[in-house]
Amino acid sequence: MPYLEEMKIFTGTSHTALAEDVCEYVEMPLGKARVSKFSNDNTFVQYEENIRQQDVFIIQPFSYPVNDTIMELLIMIDAAKRASAGRITAVIPYYAYGRTDKKDQPRVPITARLLADLLTVAGANRVVTVDMHAGQIQGFFNIPVDELTALPLLADYFQRKDLDAPVVVAVDIGISKRARDMATKLGASLAIIEKRRLDNLDHTEVMNVIGEVKGRTAITFDDETGTGGSLQLAVNAALEAGAREVYSCSTHGVFTSPAVDRISDMGIREMVVTDTLPSACSTNVPKIKVLSVASLLGEAICRIHEGRSVGELFSD
Amino acid sequence: MPYLEEMKIFTGTSHTALAEDVCEYVEMPLGKARVSKFSNDNTFVQYEENIRQQDVFIIQPFSYPVNDTIMELLIMIDAAKRASAGRITAVIPYYAYGRTDKKDQPRVPITARLLADLLTVAGANRVVTVDMHAGQIQGFFNIPVDELTALPLLADYFQRKDLDAPVVVAVDIGISKRARDMATKLGASLAIIEKRRLDNLDHTEVMNVIGEVKGRTAITFDDETGTGGSLQLAVNAALEAGAREVYSCSTHGVFTSPAVDRISDMGIREMVVTDTLPSACSTNVPKIKVLSVASLLGEAICRIHEGRSVGELFSD
Amino acid sequence: MPYLEEMKIFTGTSHTALAEDVCEYVEMPLGKARVSKFSNDNTFVQYEENIRQQDVFIIQPFSYPVNDTIMELLIMIDAAKRASAGRITAVIPYYAYGRTDKKDQPRVPITARLLADLLTVAGANRVVTVDMHAGQIQGFFNIPVDELTALPLLADYFQRKDLDAPVVVAVDIGISKRARDMATKLGASLAIIEKRRLDNLDHTEVMNVIGEVKGRTAITFDDETGTGGSLQLAVNAALEAGAREVYSCSTHGVFTSPAVDRISDMGIREMVVTDTLPSACSTNVPKIKVLSVASLLGEAICRIHEGRSVGELFSD
Amino acid sequence: MPYLEEMKIFTGTSHTALAEDVCEYVEMPLGKARVSKFSNDNTFVQYEENIRQQDVFIIQPFSYPVNDTIMELLIMIDAAKRASAGRITAVIPYYAYGRTDKKDQPRVPITARLLADLLTVAGANRVVTVDMHAGQIQGFFNIPVDELTALPLLADYFQRKDLDAPVVVAVDIGISKRARDMATKLGASLAIIEKRRLDNLDHTEVMNVIGEVKGRTAITFDDETGTGGSLQLAVNAALEAGAREVYSCSTHGVFTSPAVDRISDMGIREMVVTDTLPSACSTNVPKIKVLSVASLLGEAICRIHEGRSVGELFSD
Amino acid sequence: MPYLEEMKIFTGTSHTALAEDVCEYVEMPLGKARVSKFSNDNTFVQYEENIRQQDVFIIQPFSYPVNDTIMELLIMIDAAKRASAGRITAVIPYYAYGRTDKKDQPRVPITARLLADLLTVAGANRVVTVDMHAGQIQGFFNIPVDELTALPLLADYFQRKDLDAPVVVAVDIGISKRARDMATKLGASLAIIEKRRLDNLDHTEVMNVIGEVKGRTAITFDDETGTGGSLQLAVNAALEAGAREVYSCSTHGVFTSPAVDRISDMGIREMVVTDTLPSACSTNVPKIKVLSVASLLGEAICRIHEGRSVGELFSD
Amino acid sequence: MPYLEEMKIFTGTSHTALAEDVCEYVEMPLGKARVSKFSNDNTFVQYEENIRQQDVFIIQPFSYPVNDTIMELLIMIDAAKRASAGRITAVIPYYAYGRTDKKDQPRVPITARLLADLLTVAGANRVVTVDMHAGQIQGFFNIPVDELTALPLLADYFQRKDLDAPVVVAVDIGISKRARDMATKLGASLAIIEKRRLDNLDHTEVMNVIGEVKGRTAITFDDETGTGGSLQLAVNAALEAGAREVYSCSTHGVFTSPAVDRISDMGIREMVVTDTLPSACSTNVPKIKVLSVASLLGEAICRIHEGRSVGELFSD
Repeated sequence: MPYLEEMKIFTGTSHTALAEDVCEYVEMPLGKARVSKFSNDNTFVQYEENIRQQDVFIIQPFSYPVNDTIMELLIMIDAAKRASAGRITAVIPYYAYGRTDKKDQPRVPITARLLADLLTVAGANRVVTVDMHAGQIQGFFNIPVDELTALPLLADYFQRKDLDAPVVVAVDIGISKRARDMATKLGASLAIIEKRRLDNLDHTEVMNVIGEVKGRTAITFDDETGTGGSLQLAVNAALEAGAREVYSCSTHGVFTSPAVDRISDMGIREMVVTDTLPSACSTNVPKIKVLSVASLLGEAICRIHEGRSVGELFSD
Repeated sequence: MPYLEEMKIFTGTSHTALAEDVCEYVEMPLGKARVSKFSNDNTFVQYEENIRQQDVFIIQPFSYPVNDTIMELLIMIDAAKRASAGRITAVIPYYAYGRTDKKDQPRVPITARLLADLLTVAGANRVVTVDMHAGQIQGFFNIPVDELTALPLLADYFQRKDLDAPVVVAVDIGISKRARDMATKLGASLAIIEKRRLDNLDHTEVMNVIGEVKGRTAITFDDETGTGGSLQLAVNAALEAGAREVYSCSTHGVFTSPAVDRISDMGIREMVVTDTLPSACSTNVPKIKVLSVASLLGEAICRIHEGRSVGELFSD
Repeated sequence: MPYLEEMKIFTGTSHTALAEDVCEYVEMPLGKARVSKFSNDNTFVQYEENIRQQDVFIIQPFSYPVNDTIMELLIMIDAAKRASAGRITAVIPYYAYGRTDKKDQPRVPITARLLADLLTVAGANRVVTVDMHAGQIQGFFNIPVDELTALPLLADYFQRKDLDAPVVVAVDIGISKRARDMATKLGASLAIIEKRRLDNLDHTEVMNVIGEVKGRTAITFDDETGTGGSLQLAVNAALEAGAREVYSCSTHGVFTSPAVDRISDMGIREMVVTDTLPSACSTNVPKIKVLSVASLLGEAICRIHEGRSVGELFSD
Repeated sequence: MPYLEEMKIFTGTSHTALAEDVCEYVEMPLGKARVSKFSNDNTFVQYEENIRQQDVFIIQPFSYPVNDTIMELLIMIDAAKRASAGRITAVIPYYAYGRTDKKDQPRVPITARLLADLLTVAGANRVVTVDMHAGQIQGFFNIPVDELTALPLLADYFQRKDLDAPVVVAVDIGISKRARDMATKLGASLAIIEKRRLDNLDHTEVMNVIGEVKGRTAITFDDETGTGGSLQLAVNAALEAGAREVYSCSTHGVFTSPAVDRISDMGIREMVVTDTLPSACSTNVPKIKVLSVASLLGEAICRIHEGRSVGELFSD
Repeated sequence: MPYLEEMKIFTGTSHTALAEDVCEYVEMPLGKARVSKFSNDNTFVQYEENIRQQDVFIIQPFSYPVNDTIMELLIMIDAAKRASAGRITAVIPYYAYGRTDKKDQPRVPITARLLADLLTVAGANRVVTVDMHAGQIQGFFNIPVDELTALPLLADYFQRKDLDAPVVVAVDIGISKRARDMATKLGASLAIIEKRRLDNLDHTEVMNVIGEVKGRTAITFDDETGTGGSLQLAVNAALEAGAREVYSCSTHGVFTSPAVDRISDMGIREMVVTDTLPSACSTNVPKIKVLSVASLLGEAICRIHEGRSVGELFSD
Repeated sequence: MPYLEEMKIFTGTSHTALAEDVCEYVEMPLGKARVSKFSNDNTFVQYEENIRQQDVFIIQPFSYPVNDTIMELLIMIDAAKRASAGRITAVIPYYAYGRTDKKDQPRVPITARLLADLLTVAGANRVVTVDMHAGQIQGFFNIPVDELTALPLLADYFQRKDLDAPVVVAVDIGISKRARDMATKLGASLAIIEKRRLDNLDHTEVMNVIGEVKGRTAITFDDETGTGGSLQLAVNAALEAGAREVYSCSTHGVFTSPAVDRISDMGIREMVVTDTLPSACSTNVPKIKVLSVASLLGEAICRIHEGRSVGELFSD
């Protein structure tokens, strides 16, 4: 009897378009599953084809509404486990709660760890994800995690623009290490925005630009863009510091209101994100360029299924 | 050093009013915690008072939006665990997903079990709940569960009405055992509605009334009332079968649309539910009578904290 | 290296005949294992053939003496795990302790859940069973459970009799839902026996027949038949309520004394059970008809081994 | 709120007399619990007093019928856990399956380890036992184990006899280390019986006596005495080797048939055991002397409850 | 019976001096335990006083030889668990392997997570530590972690110097966020050293100083100082970039050879570390200033034992 | 997709020579992995070839420095797990801490069990080892353990010498059972050295020789030889008791100082050990004969990989 003979890809409701693009890349149809809600708001899941001993991949970024897409994935995993799936891989292009990854105040949760435990107890055997907020989140899991990165995708895109005197600008201190990786890939220099509260009374903040941006082409960098508030402050700071022009990029276009309006109005040439989230795909703003991670995910899925190295996808 | 010296009661966002009523019963203030959402839809939790080694109770029925209130509770439990709470009791007056408690079709989840595992892995030490859909759900847990019941509350209410020739009508076959318990408490006879599909093609269903209702005062019984659809069919069937008048009751007033309208229009004298869910409290329909479980919960919490029997609350 | 290349079927001492019939169906010899007791009453197990990486099925209904057959299975699983079996499936045609599946009184165990944990900790990877007392018991496991049902077998048998005006009579309220499923399969109507204590002092019970049986052919239905006491009360009640003739059926013939005598004396035409338990096979009462689940188990085992759907065995 | 304020002692059906003697020692009544069997051979348990947050001790040696007394204890533990016991200590004066503690043949279980896992998964928080077959069995547990020893009890008894030139004779090689401890306590020398198969064909065995017994008072030593077969061979070997007279002792009087007859007929002066098992107490053979471990168990239970050292019970 | 009545502090062999200072702070003697090695290099542990139900703290930084001090702590925890300690807190002032906290290359371990699992499986109930390499390492644990910080200690020390135009210089990008926290505490500005490889062939690296240091008093910042190599490059870069004078600080003085020589020769005014590691205490270099965390640890231990907030130790 | 298609053998730093011999036997190259220490004494591991879904064997005896080689193996397992190895087998020819396998004194650890848990939590799926100190240590694991034995190797070696009147002499009581197995294989008789303290004051010990050695060729037997102290006492005792000549053997040549000098000086003809430890291989003492277990390990690895019986390697 062969083991894990076939691979099957399913998706919840969070980002069907991406799942279909991945299936197109791997040249197989999306698996049939019913994922819906009963009138009492309880999520219902049923796989509509046999998955016994098969190599099941479930694609579900933790998009808005976040808790809902998380629970949906957990329920899909439970159903797959009880349906005797041979192996269950949760493919989570965007892992929410990444910023709740440590106790930086008393009596707060570490939700990014909690999620790892929830996924594992539900029955996930492995996880594939893209650009988590911190690499350490891999260590929240005891099942294998393949963290893919969209950095080469973003870097290639800017490389082809042949920008003049580029400087990668980390939107805040926390992202500076990954911004450095980006700068290295682009052969650019690095600058960092440091937000600092001026005084405890009136909550005024100043944005310090650490590093040289004057006369350069700035590319602001973050892992995800939410309301666009920090981005706007960073862009303004870069411009005030004398940047010639500003591009922006981040892997995940979370784009919660009023991000799209802000970006439209911002003094940037272009905002580059990927399609890890449906919100990134649905804006109709010309300034927003969306690169697709579908082939990246598809390639990783094939390699995982066939036992080939995923790491060499990113070796230079 | 004393252990579990103090008891503290917290609540998430799902049903603050109930939590306050419980606190009033136990004569202590509701614990201070910040439970909210970031702009990126991620839930944030912070306990605003020290809970080290304390006996923490978190009241959170799984009300609409269901997946959200579940995740919120899980995150609250994680935060309490990491804040060194001495013991964490999840008080879940309404346990959602109760009807997803078995694999009655191929490749479906058993979400009620999944929830038990999620609560346990998050760090809950015990659970208090009210009238779960099936008693077996207790066995989904390996931590102690105190399942309270609102049946005496409902029975007392009807007892005081001194109804003529009462018959408890189970709204469907699945609830017939608990309906019998209600009937026994009321000294009433029992009837059961059996929904049966007439033929596979046009999905027509007939409602068989098994047992005698003719000339009697029917009290329809269910554990929860959702859209009111099944209830309406049951009430109609009871009336067609000759019931003199019809009352309805169920522990949990889920009341998803169009439940309230339906109940208003239905030929019943009264619909009796409890306040386990905020939805039950917010209807302004005179026909809907809401009994409070606050003192029941408060009493159980005190007994748990003090190590006194909870079972004797329900001994006849 | 192939994985789970071969499938091997073993049995403990509880029901060798059934195991042999299953092996005949799948056309392979029963695996060799020594299962016995030392003089000190300790169970001893040794597999007498190599089972490394093989797909091991152990057939062992929890028959009398119940605790002994349970422990024997646990020890067989432990030995298989330590002998590096590739996968271990516990095939438990009759799952005892099914009625201890909830805390309906204070301070009682939930033994059906405990068993699930014992099986899992011993090393079982999956479970196959037939008609458990409650579907929720599946949820007591976190390993995949295939619950087969003998209902089609029983229904086919009665269908071929072409009975006049059949009514399925649930022996008690607890079994009414499954009795309804049987009634639906047979195109029969449904009636339910409700046992109710008349008064708290002298423990007299009355049997209410809810639903119409007058002039009909009653088929009493239960999941298992123990001493036959409830059955007798139900049969009497059905006859008193005017049933023309009575048949009885249940999946599991536990038949503890004096069941066989009672059944012999009872006013029923036939008692139909399956061979999930050795006790059902050994009665020499002509009135007791025993249908075999061997091919059902054999077919399920083959499908599990080959990764084919088990659910479609029961799709109409 | 006090924690573990009270201690409560319960017993299953295996050895009530010992439990009562222990309770007498600690001067408290035996806790009330119903432990029985349903007609279908399923064990039923119910605690008849509140045990929330109490320090529960359950006394249950694994006596005949072994699998039954094991399952009974597991079910009692499950019920105590679900009844919110503060701490559950399994007091197992005789731990069966001690000789199945390693894989000395291919494809056999390690049942002594399996038992440890079963006890733990059921919910035991600690274990108290007496003279396990091998000290390593403690390491099968990850919960604290207090292994008491009856060696001082046995040694004191013989010491008071003031025997002439005593030699402790290990009944087989496996027990020689513990026999040496006994010899040391008694200031006696040591001899060991080595059973060896003469040839593979006719299974003749010879008993070699390693060490000097000629003209000495032999005290055969074993941890448990089952059918008395090995004992008889050992006694004969000692006598043949010139022992002047022979006494026998072992902690556990398992005494499976025909042990009592054999011992009666054997050329020994006395057989000394303890009352860890009911079988040891019920023989009416004058030659068999039964020492009680009740005060040893009672003292250990008190010390555990009060957090005092158990080890110092055995420090010289 | 009181629970966790007494608190006991033990230490392994890694840093006895610190443990004694902590005991002095809490005004109780260090607990007696034998921790040594057998001639076969196996670590041996024995607690020489009763610890049943007591609140046990074991102080053991993961100092050189690292794997040895880790194993020693694990063995101490195992012994405490088996000796029925009421609660076991591992106090690990320096948590080694902090830089192996993510998979930044293919096929590497996440040893910081592995350690968390080892500590937990050994039996630790909680962890206290000081300035881990990344806050996310807290999330590697599912037991409560109290991460203390020496930042206020270091900041106070520099504050008292009243330095002119101070700038905190992060020794590399990875530490920039925590350097910013330090800068904020000191009211200093921030600069960051970015190490970048010039070309892939000859491995030449350049040190970019991002931010302004010219004419300022630089305080280089890192969480730990190993060989001092990075520090030296950072100091040189700061000086070349025009810093007026340079101080250095880090919480953990790992000081592996040739750190002490390098620091002696370096163009810095002072190197400030704490005594979390014995290596920091044993240098006899005047330029190296060692601040003590003993009172910090002692205060935290007391608060944990008494259930008082630890977080408020660090609230401003 | 094939599962576990290839087998790969890796080794840590503890005994490369043995790993290479094993690879030679199985005719495949040793897998490439970097295993080293950073300057801060932290162990670093990286597999330098893809191991996804492969059947990974890691050969690492727990040689000096013991805690280091243990941690190294744990880290290698963690890295293999996170690199998605299909199955991880820890091949531990010498399992240290075997003598810490029970609580024979109060408040000591059971480190042999702790190690089993550490290996399991790190991610080992199975263990292969050679002659553990006690067979029960197998039961410390819940993953399959293949304990190989070098007894046939040692026995064959002595068999070929055709010794006159051989007697196997157990070096102490604890090893007597395994010495008997050796004696049986050799057709030799058995004697046992019993070390006994004469009096509590001056710690004088006497060595009793139990059994006949006079005029015989003694072969002292132990599982491991450490400093050679016990061995020397045993050899002297055997000679004093009249042994004609003495050989010595044990599986594991731990040989901690001054073992090699002692053995050189001892009145034995030959000391026979195996190459399970590097220390056994590196002595240049002609009297020490080292037999290789490489083919034994290689054969076991092949059989495990191919799912063939390992037990039959040792069937007579």
